[in-house]
Amino acid sequence: MSRTRIAVLGCGRIGRVHADSVAVSDRAELTWVFDPIEAAAREVGERYGAAWATDVEDVLAAGDVDAVVVASPTPTHVDLLSRAVRTGRTALCEKPIDLDIARVDACRADLGDLTDRVMLGFNRRFDASFAEVRRRVDAGEVGPLEQLTIVSRDPAPPPADYVASSGGLFRDMMIHDLDLARFFLGEVVAVSALGSNLVSAEIRAAGDVDGAMVVLRGAGGQLATITNSRRCAYGYDQRLEAFGALGALTAANQHATSVNFSGAAYTGAAGPALNFFLDRYTPAYRAELDAFVTMTETGGVASPGFDDGRAALLLADAAAESLRTGAVVEVRA
Amino acid sequence: MSRTRIAVLGCGRIGRVHADSVAVSDRAELTWVFDPIEAAAREVGERYGAAWATDVEDVLAAGDVDAVVVASPTPTHVDLLSRAVRTGRTALCEKPIDLDIARVDACRADLGDLTDRVMLGFNRRFDASFAEVRRRVDAGEVGPLEQLTIVSRDPAPPPADYVASSGGLFRDMMIHDLDLARFFLGEVVAVSALGSNLVSAEIRAAGDVDGAMVVLRGAGGQLATITNSRRCAYGYDQRLEAFGALGALTAANQHATSVNFSGAAYTGAAGPALNFFLDRYTPAYRAELDAFVTMTETGGVASPGFDDGRAALLLADAAAESLRTGAVVEVRA
Amino acid sequence: MSRTRIAVLGCGRIGRVHADSVAVSDRAELTWVFDPIEAAAREVGERYGAAWATDVEDVLAAGDVDAVVVASPTPTHVDLLSRAVRTGRTALCEKPIDLDIARVDACRADLGDLTDRVMLGFNRRFDASFAEVRRRVDAGEVGPLEQLTIVSRDPAPPPADYVASSGGLFRDMMIHDLDLARFFLGEVVAVSALGSNLVSAEIRAAGDVDGAMVVLRGAGGQLATITNSRRCAYGYDQRLEAFGALGALTAANQHATSVNFSGAAYTGAAGPALNFFLDRYTPAYRAELDAFVTMTETGGVASPGFDDGRAALLLADAAAESLRTGAVVEVRA
Amino acid sequence: MSRTRIAVLGCGRIGRVHADSVAVSDRAELTWVFDPIEAAAREVGERYGAAWATDVEDVLAAGDVDAVVVASPTPTHVDLLSRAVRTGRTALCEKPIDLDIARVDACRADLGDLTDRVMLGFNRRFDASFAEVRRRVDAGEVGPLEQLTIVSRDPAPPPADYVASSGGLFRDMMIHDLDLARFFLGEVVAVSALGSNLVSAEIRAAGDVDGAMVVLRGAGGQLATITNSRRCAYGYDQRLEAFGALGALTAANQHATSVNFSGAAYTGAAGPALNFFLDRYTPAYRAELDAFVTMTETGGVASPGFDDGRAALLLADAAAESLRTGAVVEVRA
Repeated sequence: MSRTRIAVLGCGRIGRVHADSVAVSDRAELTWVFDPIEAAAREVGERYGAAWATDVEDVLAAGDVDAVVVASPTPTHVDLLSRAVRTGRTALCEKPIDLDIARVDACRADLGDLTDRVMLGFNRRFDASFAEVRRRVDAGEVGPLEQLTIVSRDPAPPPADYVASSGGLFRDMMIHDLDLARFFLGEVVAVSALGSNLVSAEIRAAGDVDGAMVVLRGAGGQLATITNSRRCAYGYDQRLEAFGALGALTAANQHATSVNFSGAAYTGAAGPALNFFLDRYTPAYRAELDAFVTMTETGGVASPGFDDGRAALLLADAAAESLRTGAVVEVRA
Repeated sequence: MSRTRIAVLGCGRIGRVHADSVAVSDRAELTWVFDPIEAAAREVGERYGAAWATDVEDVLAAGDVDAVVVASPTPTHVDLLSRAVRTGRTALCEKPIDLDIARVDACRADLGDLTDRVMLGFNRRFDASFAEVRRRVDAGEVGPLEQLTIVSRDPAPPPADYVASSGGLFRDMMIHDLDLARFFLGEVVAVSALGSNLVSAEIRAAGDVDGAMVVLRGAGGQLATITNSRRCAYGYDQRLEAFGALGALTAANQHATSVNFSGAAYTGAAGPALNFFLDRYTPAYRAELDAFVTMTETGGVASPGFDDGRAALLLADAAAESLRTGAVVEVRA
Repeated sequence: MSRTRIAVLGCGRIGRVHADSVAVSDRAELTWVFDPIEAAAREVGERYGAAWATDVEDVLAAGDVDAVVVASPTPTHVDLLSRAVRTGRTALCEKPIDLDIARVDACRADLGDLTDRVMLGFNRRFDASFAEVRRRVDAGEVGPLEQLTIVSRDPAPPPADYVASSGGLFRDMMIHDLDLARFFLGEVVAVSALGSNLVSAEIRAAGDVDGAMVVLRGAGGQLATITNSRRCAYGYDQRLEAFGALGALTAANQHATSVNFSGAAYTGAAGPALNFFLDRYTPAYRAELDAFVTMTETGGVASPGFDDGRAALLLADAAAESLRTGAVVEVRA
Repeated sequence: MSRTRIAVLGCGRIGRVHADSVAVSDRAELTWVFDPIEAAAREVGERYGAAWATDVEDVLAAGDVDAVVVASPTPTHVDLLSRAVRTGRTALCEKPIDLDIARVDACRADLGDLTDRVMLGFNRRFDASFAEVRRRVDAGEVGPLEQLTIVSRDPAPPPADYVASSGGLFRDMMIHDLDLARFFLGEVVAVSALGSNLVSAEIRAAGDVDGAMVVLRGAGGQLATITNSRRCAYGYDQRLEAFGALGALTAANQHATSVNFSGAAYTGAAGPALNFFLDRYTPAYRAELDAFVTMTETGGVASPGFDDGRAALLLADAAAESLRTGAVVEVRA
């Protein structure tokens, strides 16, 4: 059985995560990597035995590329994913598609049905714990979902220059949680957001918040809260609770080992939560890659797809608007 | 040492809780109980060996009453607490003071400094777990508080006629959580509320919501969420998480025993959470009574006091307004 | 309804625990206390409004005593419980009946059916968690019991003079666990014991061990371990696991509150376990007293009874013999 | 950097585990596999792209073998590991070295210093949780170790024919726990064992026990219990508690996800424990292989080594003797 031949576009932190997922998969093969910075492209290419390029045209023209992972800076996403699907490849695009909903809409109009070939990198849908909660909710274990609680806190704020170009907490960080809310609630029709600046003077100076609490209402009348913070002393705080008439399913934080300590001061102390997304979500990235390979091989419609990326961006925009106006923002998909 | 002589006004469910707290206290003595329904007054009086009356004048005129617990229907609170403090007693008044903030303000203007002698029945402040979290937050364990998460779900909806006169979920149920938020955040300056009707057709018919998620902002910029539901399959869901730069303190649900079961289908299953407020908060009611006795004996200012009751009602009103208008409501104490 | 009139013999630490249980019971009344030390007798009597005596004859001759709690030093147990039941009272006797099995057997022969009126103070059978495990095991939740694990560690070693007269770890401390094993396994037919001296030089000097691990075999072939230590940094370690073909029921340690802390160094840290037997077992002592009152009122056979006290002592003797000889000791009830 | 070239001898269940560990390692390369059954050898060889042989001589004569994993039936271990180290390779030998201590001693005498090149497959030493407990005990977190509790239960009994040739529960199953006890206690000087037959009529018919509880004493006077059962409803029960003057370190069971469920019947229910050794210990097997590669590359002394395998077998024999004689068996290393 032949392996799906994959090119990774962008050799920064997240590009390397994807390259690694491809490397450990027995269904995929890393054939090309691209980065405009030669040192980065060369290093990743050589590590995994893939061809490397500083000109993306070389990759797009190559015969041995079935699928493309778009892990380049956000402003390049629309262009790269468009060219990938136009040249017959599938694309796995990191979130967000773009920071500007108008560009996303234009891309969608432009690509038409080709957007079916674009999978969005909402890796948390592939986290074994979150996916299990979803599966058991779907199976009716808690009855129809009524309330969803998402807590998502990063261990430490990103560098100031990252913040400046990130699109802000809602589009950069909470977009994952907004997608997760949609994963559980289906369409979200209302958003109310409050924000705070208690963590980082730099983030405040950049005009962004570093903490937020958002309430959402789903089309079925369900409610959800999302709590975000750019700092968390005990690691990467990634939890979820799905509540309905029959009970609740909870996904707790995860730890490197199952060891705990009891002593004079306290009992049952586990270690810190897994430190950050590489620790917590490496298996999710691999499962995501596997789903991408399947979608590439079978020719099906990507899920999460382009429209999921668009919908999450709309929610992030709505949250930003709610924060600015102090009003609940109604959202129309 | 002489015991504080206490009269309980109102012999319904909550009046009996207070009568029981007095009975087990070795610092207090139940001397009188009042209820307009003779059977109720007589039963409680006889059970605890206290005089009983169906005319509250008899109690107010009695010489052996140092302090009064106001546990009668809400519309009578203002009148009874006023007469109690005017006749030189202290009053422990069940929440809310009144459903109408105008009446509360009038009462306050009327009583002046006598409001110092009115303690509000926000029993959760006396829950050992919540009080421990507060104490440890004050001691700096998590650093300055940044985010507070309160979950409060009743096991089952109240009877329809109760709902009709309750003042609605915000004034009746969430008022406890709003006070708890103030217990941690200090003053709250903004409220945003979303509600749902997923539990009870009767509650919907009564024009009330049966679920809600509210976001608050404290004067210091801290954020809080409160999640309420009128139904919870696994018991009385009463949890709290206080989060700051140094970590988080969490108060989990409580169980009748420390037993858990592991079998073929699952592992580590504890029993349901304590069923309802009598199970969970009986020790808190006793600690509250003890604080009330101390305040009566020492002549100090009540805490939580009249103004805490007023502030919680203002927040409940703000939440109701936010639900109605879809706007964040700014609150001025 | 009249209350059961109770005399407490012995006003030391454990006598006061029982006096307190009587005081808070609404089914019992403390009428007499006895202690040869006048200060002790007087203090306890005055605290609870009971008559007090330094001559036990005064108590035994009193007309207002229905039941007697024997909480005096171990060497006096046999005499006092015998006189109590011979004068028509029931007796609740602290463990052990005596340190000498020959005296226990003589007492039993002497009293005949009157031993039915002697309840043994194995308070752990009345602990809500252990009792729940027992009830659920009886209900078949784990299938027939196959393996039982008991961990029982004191927070700190007792004073040296206490050790000297205690009868040793097996008869003084483990006797509770041996009874608990019998509570679950029924008869125990074999005992193998290893001991250690890693905690206290004084205990070693007294010829006793300060840690032990014992394996038992029940008549049905089930196995059990008991782990004891005279020191535990994190409080009073009192746990139990009952295992069978269908799973396991576990009773975990208990804590003063449900609070836990997560920070940079660790997560989910609860407080220490409840500190010692007064903290952990006060509700069990009260439930035990209640069962004693019921047995007194109804005239039934005590449970746990005299023969349970004798059987536990036999097992403690067997453990001591196994420790000395290095052989599994077969036990015949 | 060149990879260590490894041959796996034996292509049964455990041989495939090792082949897989080699395959995912970037420090090792699977060059040969051997099994007398051609279908097995071929299948494994082809899956991993290794040469395969039904005659072990082919492997031993091959030039591209640096190290050998002995995963063949127990009676062949001594011969194969001896020939491996005599031909200049290192050997990773599955436990036990042999069921007969006399053969083990003869092999040791025969090989002399070459035993330094033999690593024993006690994979649990490489489990991240157990290794963390060991590391933290060594760091003094609980003070000098005083009591060790090991629980080890298989999900289901092995096939009857496996039992017949297994050497019995102590040499086949508990040998892992006995090694783990040595990993923590150092030398063990006394063993007392009780056994039971409550699980399987076939195991009883084979003259073996299917449950056991063993107490050990270390050279330093520390005590340990090991609890074994051939059946566990809730998965592979693999736990450990290390207790000392300063507290306890506990390694709990592990689960596939961090999800738990709360409903009307119970709360906080996690899924079953990981099902069996492949689920729980795959990371441990990979870490073990990594240590084996390091030892092969650096020429150091294997740890755990031949003498650890011999010592664990001595303890298993001692446990079997204790079960037979009903006496504590003193062990001399």
